[in-house]
Amino acid sequence: MKLSDLGEFGLIARFASRFLERLPAGTTGIGDDCAVLPWTKDRRLLVTTDMLVEDVHFLRAAIPARDLGYKSLGVNLSDIAAMGGRPLSAFLSLGIPGGIDVGWLDAFFRGIRDLAAAESVSLLGGDTTKSPGPLVINIAVLGAARPGKIKFRSGARPGDGIFVTGSLGDSAAGLRIVLEKRPRGRDEAALVRRHNRPRPHLPEGAWLAGRKAVTAMMDVSDGIDSDLRRILERSVCGAAVNLDALPLSALLRRAARKYGWDERELAVTGGEDYCLLAAVRRDAAAETAAAFERAFGRPLVRIGTIMAAGDGLRYFAGGRPAALRRRGFDHFRPKG
Amino acid sequence: MKLSDLGEFGLIARFASRFLERLPAGTTGIGDDCAVLPWTKDRRLLVTTDMLVEDVHFLRAAIPARDLGYKSLGVNLSDIAAMGGRPLSAFLSLGIPGGIDVGWLDAFFRGIRDLAAAESVSLLGGDTTKSPGPLVINIAVLGAARPGKIKFRSGARPGDGIFVTGSLGDSAAGLRIVLEKRPRGRDEAALVRRHNRPRPHLPEGAWLAGRKAVTAMMDVSDGIDSDLRRILERSVCGAAVNLDALPLSALLRRAARKYGWDERELAVTGGEDYCLLAAVRRDAAAETAAAFERAFGRPLVRIGTIMAAGDGLRYFAGGRPAALRRRGFDHFRPKG
Repeated sequence: MKLSDLGEFGLIARFASRFLERLPAGTTGIGDDCAVLPWTKDRRLLVTTDMLVEDVHFLRAAIPARDLGYKSLGVNLSDIAAMGGRPLSAFLSLGIPGGIDVGWLDAFFRGIRDLAAAESVSLLGGDTTKSPGPLVINIAVLGAARPGKIKFRSGARPGDGIFVTGSLGDSAAGLRIVLEKRPRGRDEAALVRRHNRPRPHLPEGAWLAGRKAVTAMMDVSDGIDSDLRRILERSVCGAAVNLDALPLSALLRRAARKYGWDERELAVTGGEDYCLLAAVRRDAAAETAAAFERAFGRPLVRIGTIMAAGDGLRYFAGGRPAALRRRGFDHFRPKG
Repeated sequence: MKLSDLGEFGLIARFASRFLERLPAGTTGIGDDCAVLPWTKDRRLLVTTDMLVEDVHFLRAAIPARDLGYKSLGVNLSDIAAMGGRPLSAFLSLGIPGGIDVGWLDAFFRGIRDLAAAESVSLLGGDTTKSPGPLVINIAVLGAARPGKIKFRSGARPGDGIFVTGSLGDSAAGLRIVLEKRPRGRDEAALVRRHNRPRPHLPEGAWLAGRKAVTAMMDVSDGIDSDLRRILERSVCGAAVNLDALPLSALLRRAARKYGWDERELAVTGGEDYCLLAAVRRDAAAETAAAFERAFGRPLVRIGTIMAAGDGLRYFAGGRPAALRRRGFDHFRPKG
């Protein structure tokens, strides 16, 4: 069988089952943003790891080394945020191709340190090797969370509101500006920066994890079309998403108008927003959103409702069903 | 500056210093086989990570997928053994090139599970992505150790005996058999197996970690010529190694005779033995070796003595100084 027939999520499902049979007590493994391990009475250990490969996840010529360092750590911290945790330490493995010099690496490490210092994360180890092919960056991050305050993907129930903690599509627009080599005005530069230096929503994640009404949470890495499906699979639910409610930044709207892009498609399938996607119990949804806005001065935006499993994931616009042009990103399927 | 001017260890030294300034209390970072983090009163958390890149660390056509899975986990467990720890869980990131099919991955995961099951290690997470170049395998392993019973590279003192827990050079001979495409008789197959499925010396590491007289420990991954230098740098010492005392297996001796190889060169610079290298206080050296042999039914072999820093690393044979042909493996320097 070819890998492309299986897809990334099929691959994970195929192999995960063989390793989940002997999980130690108090441990949660494959299938969420982080693994959760027993630690002390009032702390759990979170572990996440992400591999970024040149020409798959980034184009080396298109992202400054410092931004790439920042982002490589950022995507991992976002996984910690998605569980409601606090990051502690990071471990970096680098496969370095011949064309990279010490100046490039200096800037790359400066980018890692920018974010590590801001979030009090220690880089405690790693591995360096040469690569005969692409630059390969693997970061593993350890974090801590309170036992009763960890959010998984599996807790959503029909009736829950679906919320996001930030605007969607900016990062995808930034990537498109890079790929289409658009001239960089102020708007374009800001969107590219959203793509290159995503802020992990750690305070938002910790805040949401502290609310009992939040039933499921994950970060938006592949686009909500793909990510929400992960929540729906794990929670055995469906969902209705209102495309009219998607939080789109003024930056994105202006760029979409200027270049003739479909801003909703970017918001739903673009990915790499690294804000959080959360389900909140129906009876507490409005109050949670209001409290979030008081805490952060920005809205927690409701984009839809969790439905029964048979409903699948459906989109609506103007009160009528709407179809999407393409699916979220899956590393083993050709992009449509 | 080019990376090749700096070398792998120079690279690590250059960047490590920037991250070690803000280490949390009770934490040891870059520069040993594992990072050590606070956990409970009577436990420390060990973390290690290794990246294996196709055509740098292995040739995909030359190692069965199941062996490669086994070895990928094994080299990480060896780092846990080197600190005296017990491995708990593993996190696997895979960058998968187009030519790999599901059958290959099935075998690879079977190999990981062979060793994970034998050592009670849980595979708890990871990441999979496609790679436009080589197959890339990154594994991070968490382990546990008792606070007073963790061995570092930095504790060796002049006069200490230098010991190894297993024979040296078998793995290098196995690799040479593969590279030179030698016909596989029983001896050759056994040596190739030593290269492909190295056993991490976890029981030996835990035993040695329990002895106060053991002052420094690490695993033999790059060859003792390179690895012993790491201990000497961290301990600010020199060493004298007696080439006549190197533990060479009958397998290695026969293969070296048959193919005209220098068995000592393979033993000293070949690497990937994944046994342990330890320094033991002079006054307890003989007793420790005797107790090890009673415990394991195999000798703990003394190969030399820790000297003052000014002495550097010197080799002796027949009581006279001896020179080595080449240095241990350094990923950013061409192999001589």
